[in-house]
Amino acid sequence: MTEHGTRLDQMRAQAPLVHNITNYVAMNIMANVLLAAGASPAMVHAHAEVSEFAGLAQALTVNIGTADPDWVKAMEMAAQVMAEAGRPWVLDPVGVGATRFRQEACAGLVALRPTIIRGNASEILALAGTAATGRGADAADSVAAAEDAAQALAQRSGAVVAVSGPEDFVTDGQQAFRVANGHALMPRITALGCSLNGIIAAFAAVGLALPATVSALAYYGLAGEQAGARADGPGSFQPAFLDALYNMTPQALDTGAQVQAA
Amino acid sequence: MTEHGTRLDQMRAQAPLVHNITNYVAMNIMANVLLAAGASPAMVHAHAEVSEFAGLAQALTVNIGTADPDWVKAMEMAAQVMAEAGRPWVLDPVGVGATRFRQEACAGLVALRPTIIRGNASEILALAGTAATGRGADAADSVAAAEDAAQALAQRSGAVVAVSGPEDFVTDGQQAFRVANGHALMPRITALGCSLNGIIAAFAAVGLALPATVSALAYYGLAGEQAGARADGPGSFQPAFLDALYNMTPQALDTGAQVQAA
Amino acid sequence: MTEHGTRLDQMRAQAPLVHNITNYVAMNIMANVLLAAGASPAMVHAHAEVSEFAGLAQALTVNIGTADPDWVKAMEMAAQVMAEAGRPWVLDPVGVGATRFRQEACAGLVALRPTIIRGNASEILALAGTAATGRGADAADSVAAAEDAAQALAQRSGAVVAVSGPEDFVTDGQQAFRVANGHALMPRITALGCSLNGIIAAFAAVGLALPATVSALAYYGLAGEQAGARADGPGSFQPAFLDALYNMTPQALDTGAQVQAA
Repeated sequence: MTEHGTRLDQMRAQAPLVHNITNYVAMNIMANVLLAAGASPAMVHAHAEVSEFAGLAQALTVNIGTADPDWVKAMEMAAQVMAEAGRPWVLDPVGVGATRFRQEACAGLVALRPTIIRGNASEILALAGTAATGRGADAADSVAAAEDAAQALAQRSGAVVAVSGPEDFVTDGQQAFRVANGHALMPRITALGCSLNGIIAAFAAVGLALPATVSALAYYGLAGEQAGARADGPGSFQPAFLDALYNMTPQALDTGAQVQAA
Repeated sequence: MTEHGTRLDQMRAQAPLVHNITNYVAMNIMANVLLAAGASPAMVHAHAEVSEFAGLAQALTVNIGTADPDWVKAMEMAAQVMAEAGRPWVLDPVGVGATRFRQEACAGLVALRPTIIRGNASEILALAGTAATGRGADAADSVAAAEDAAQALAQRSGAVVAVSGPEDFVTDGQQAFRVANGHALMPRITALGCSLNGIIAAFAAVGLALPATVSALAYYGLAGEQAGARADGPGSFQPAFLDALYNMTPQALDTGAQVQAA
Repeated sequence: MTEHGTRLDQMRAQAPLVHNITNYVAMNIMANVLLAAGASPAMVHAHAEVSEFAGLAQALTVNIGTADPDWVKAMEMAAQVMAEAGRPWVLDPVGVGATRFRQEACAGLVALRPTIIRGNASEILALAGTAATGRGADAADSVAAAEDAAQALAQRSGAVVAVSGPEDFVTDGQQAFRVANGHALMPRITALGCSLNGIIAAFAAVGLALPATVSALAYYGLAGEQAGARADGPGSFQPAFLDALYNMTPQALDTGAQVQAA
């Protein structure tokens, strides 16, 4: 199966401009992840320019990690542009179960029909309206416990829904896949989930949302495996991970991807 | 003496949710420091949710490094929640001597009775009302020169006061300790002081403020020593430091801690 | 030729306080770059203190990467202080060609007479009013294509203008230099251009703008060459780069600098 490597090649060939309205914690590592992978990141949020800038981008990510009402408004403005242009955008509902503000922000964003929603199990459960036990950005529920919620959320929202965890689950409400790539150190480095949104968006800029998401997860997780094999802990993991994203060949991705229909 | 290692164990077992309202420079490294140590970080500041979120957290840190009046208000809102719940919070008065805005912001925050105040010598001198020569985040005064000011500030504010430097000084206004762990490269990496606040908060979430602060400083400084021994400069120091925080055993901490009653 | 090393020595001896009003992506790496080089960074933007703080600084950098109108106002306030005090400030017109907001923000800042303007070729072309093809922070035009625009912009604005690229071009509108130091991985790490502004400002704090800019570019690019020789990709490049900035000797800089009059 050579589809994952082909998608990586296509993404690098186009080097899509990915517009990110994300949290303060993630901005630097997310930009570095996108540059290492071969895409072109930009972080722009001012109301004075966010719609105009979204019009230049091939894909958008929004992330409510450190948002306030002004930032949520900027996300809505940019999402509207992408929706009207038929270009993909990714929603990350960070910690959506924690506060009423996050629930309302995400409800408004889901209503704008994101192309892809990616979160951990607790976030997807909370977003789907199911009781979740997560707090902050760390998941307290298993991926398996969130599969039904992911299916329901995909059907209700029209989005591809990806649940991140030791084994990821991805569905468009009809088809579903499991991606087993990844490394146990990854949750110990902040904003790697947030940064993954950028990779998903970059892949989705050059292909259909469901296979793009699956290939992006395999690429990201496999780079994590390679970094984990070289790292002595979460500190040395991070440079090794960026190197692995940069050095990944299409052949290595196709060989290492662990994807199964669910 | 096995108390430091025991506290590290207890902190990791509880993995406290530490709510941080900190500066833009520190957010990423602070989250990575907390994750490497075994705690669970969250950065939340919007007025729309900051009180609700503080209610979920086991400890709070506030840091005025890049604050504006809205951010200071958010810090006050979260500190109020912690104070009412009897949960610990840490104030970092970054560059308090530099501008009138910082002085007023810190005066308001000290009035809310932080559990712990941590700064460099110049910041503690300025906060205590003593003439200081520091500018920005870099200390221009020695720790020894700030010991009396730290004692006075602790007695007046009710906080444990920690003065960071080559040898740290910690006091609750009655007892005092010196912690000699650390490495000369640490001031050459930005926001390591800010990030230390998170570790202090995580330890204080599971124990009394004075011993928690002392053990947190020893743990942090010892990890710095281990990283410094492997680093070629401030760049390679940073991954090695996160690895050291992650790999530190309670036994190694008890063996390496350099703590003395003052 | 020993002038570059002498300037590095002088900068380290004075350790100038460099005030930065920059984008969220750059803040951490920019502070680390300045600390590694031997300067003292501070990030301050609140209207309540930005003018007072600028009064304490030896140099200023402003960067519109993630700006909004409030941040642009803060940049103008700080630039005014530096202009009145006769101290140097550096403007980075990130992505100026992308939106009307950026064009207007930069027009206002250029009118305040920056000491130095640094950007990539697309940004300098756009700022000079010449058609450019760049988008976001990545250049789509060659340095050579921007030399005439840089000359014209320097003459019109009174600033030293530096065009970053594989070979940098620096001019005050009369004299011009090319700096050939650098490494192909540098554009693959985010905010290295933004961080360079800090180094230019630190050198300009202790010397004349044109030679200071040239020496800063040589120092930065040579550190990049040393890091690139040790790196396996953009991840391992970053710690190696900070180590190289920290460990650079004046002698190594004078030996390795590749500067020519244009």
